[in-house]
Amino acid sequence: MILGKVAGTIVSTNQNINIKGAKLLLVDMCNTKGESTGNFLVALDLVGAGYDEVVMISQSTSARETSMTKNKPIDAAIVGIIDVMDEFEKVVYRK
Amino acid sequence: MILGKVAGTIVSTNQNINIKGAKLLLVDMCNTKGESTGNFLVALDLVGAGYDEVVMISQSTSARETSMTKNKPIDAAIVGIIDVMDEFEKVVYRK
Amino acid sequence: MILGKVAGTIVSTNQNINIKGAKLLLVDMCNTKGESTGNFLVALDLVGAGYDEVVMISQSTSARETSMTKNKPIDAAIVGIIDVMDEFEKVVYRK
Amino acid sequence: MILGKVAGTIVSTNQNINIKGAKLLLVDMCNTKGESTGNFLVALDLVGAGYDEVVMISQSTSARETSMTKNKPIDAAIVGIIDVMDEFEKVVYRK
Amino acid sequence: MILGKVAGTIVSTNQNINIKGAKLLLVDMCNTKGESTGNFLVALDLVGAGYDEVVMISQSTSARETSMTKNKPIDAAIVGIIDVMDEFEKVVYRK
Repeated sequence: MILGKVAGTIVSTNQNINIKGAKLLLVDMCNTKGESTGNFLVALDLVGAGYDEVVMISQSTSARETSMTKNKPIDAAIVGIIDVMDEFEKVVYRK
Repeated sequence: MILGKVAGTIVSTNQNINIKGAKLLLVDMCNTKGESTGNFLVALDLVGAGYDEVVMISQSTSARETSMTKNKPIDAAIVGIIDVMDEFEKVVYRK
Repeated sequence: MILGKVAGTIVSTNQNINIKGAKLLLVDMCNTKGESTGNFLVALDLVGAGYDEVVMISQSTSARETSMTKNKPIDAAIVGIIDVMDEFEKVVYRK
Repeated sequence: MILGKVAGTIVSTNQNINIKGAKLLLVDMCNTKGESTGNFLVALDLVGAGYDEVVMISQSTSARETSMTKNKPIDAAIVGIIDVMDEFEKVVYRK
Repeated sequence: MILGKVAGTIVSTNQNINIKGAKLLLVDMCNTKGESTGNFLVALDLVGAGYDEVVMISQSTSARETSMTKNKPIDAAIVGIIDVMDEFEKVVYRK
């Protein structure tokens, strides 16, 4: 999974995704310190992620392995909110 | 899903896609402000996207999870037209 | 799908692809004007593409959604020859 | 598979992965000498990898071809710990 | 498929691939002249490739479309050894 930071939301009324209550978030890819890279993805939120939270994103077919996304044309889903990240036994990010 | 801007159309008479009325669009990947990057994809239009509109593109197997694209050799499909995008509660793009 | 220009052929007698009469082409990724980038892929030809033609390439599982490529270890197939490409209602490439 | 070096761990209580005892590791992509590149992935550990070990990571659908990851929204899994790597008959990395 | 040059071997006793006699090779991505780029993949050898040979690598799900790799967590396989490559009717590589 890749790391990203929730940066905003997307409104798309004319779409073909067909998921009731789908919440599409704009996610900025980030490093292990939670610093943004400026590369964005649109991902379906499966965990109730909020602004500025660091999340894990699962891509491609893996994004569809949940009851909500099964057989939907989704290629990126937020599958977890990161609480703590450590590198070499030192905490580098804490929610 | 990735963001792109509809830049043009593709005509391909000798093809193996076998979708009646398939509309193939040339899409320029763009940032969250709708600014082009100059990296292009050819994507099947599923939502009636028009010139200069910012769209969401679903890739790989996810592009085939619709009735029109099922079992077709398509690896990129436009699955939504973006109406509004906001970053940190500020609108950065509006259709 | 991505755009490429047919640049040459590949001969591989010791292979595991198991497609009778498979024609493997060397394709140079190109921009919307048909200009080469120098990044190459080996793709299975499904449409009889010739030297210097600009083609659409479908990748990964999508490349296997045809009768010829089904269940074969192919991850790139030429699925269409481009006749005309236009950007903002101006023709940028014509075969 | 790509090469990576185990750099740390991830804690995510609010997640949608649904694997009991899932251990998510932070992996830094590395070269054949085991030198880090600073590009990170979050991968599910299937082999008991430890800090600083060089591992092989399988991505996308391939990451789900094990009993633990089947039908789970996982797109990266550590499938092997590297003991020795050689280039042109010279050992370049040893655990 | 992408082009690579066989650069070495990988030994991994603690792994989860479960293929008897699996031979994992270190492959350096290369251009059409067989020149290395320094970007490496670990790929399962399906064709008996040897040091310094230029090979075709199939990735992701396509890598599993053979009897040996079916349902295995493999995302890169060597599916052919290149004998000859030509660009614009001029031979650029010969084994």
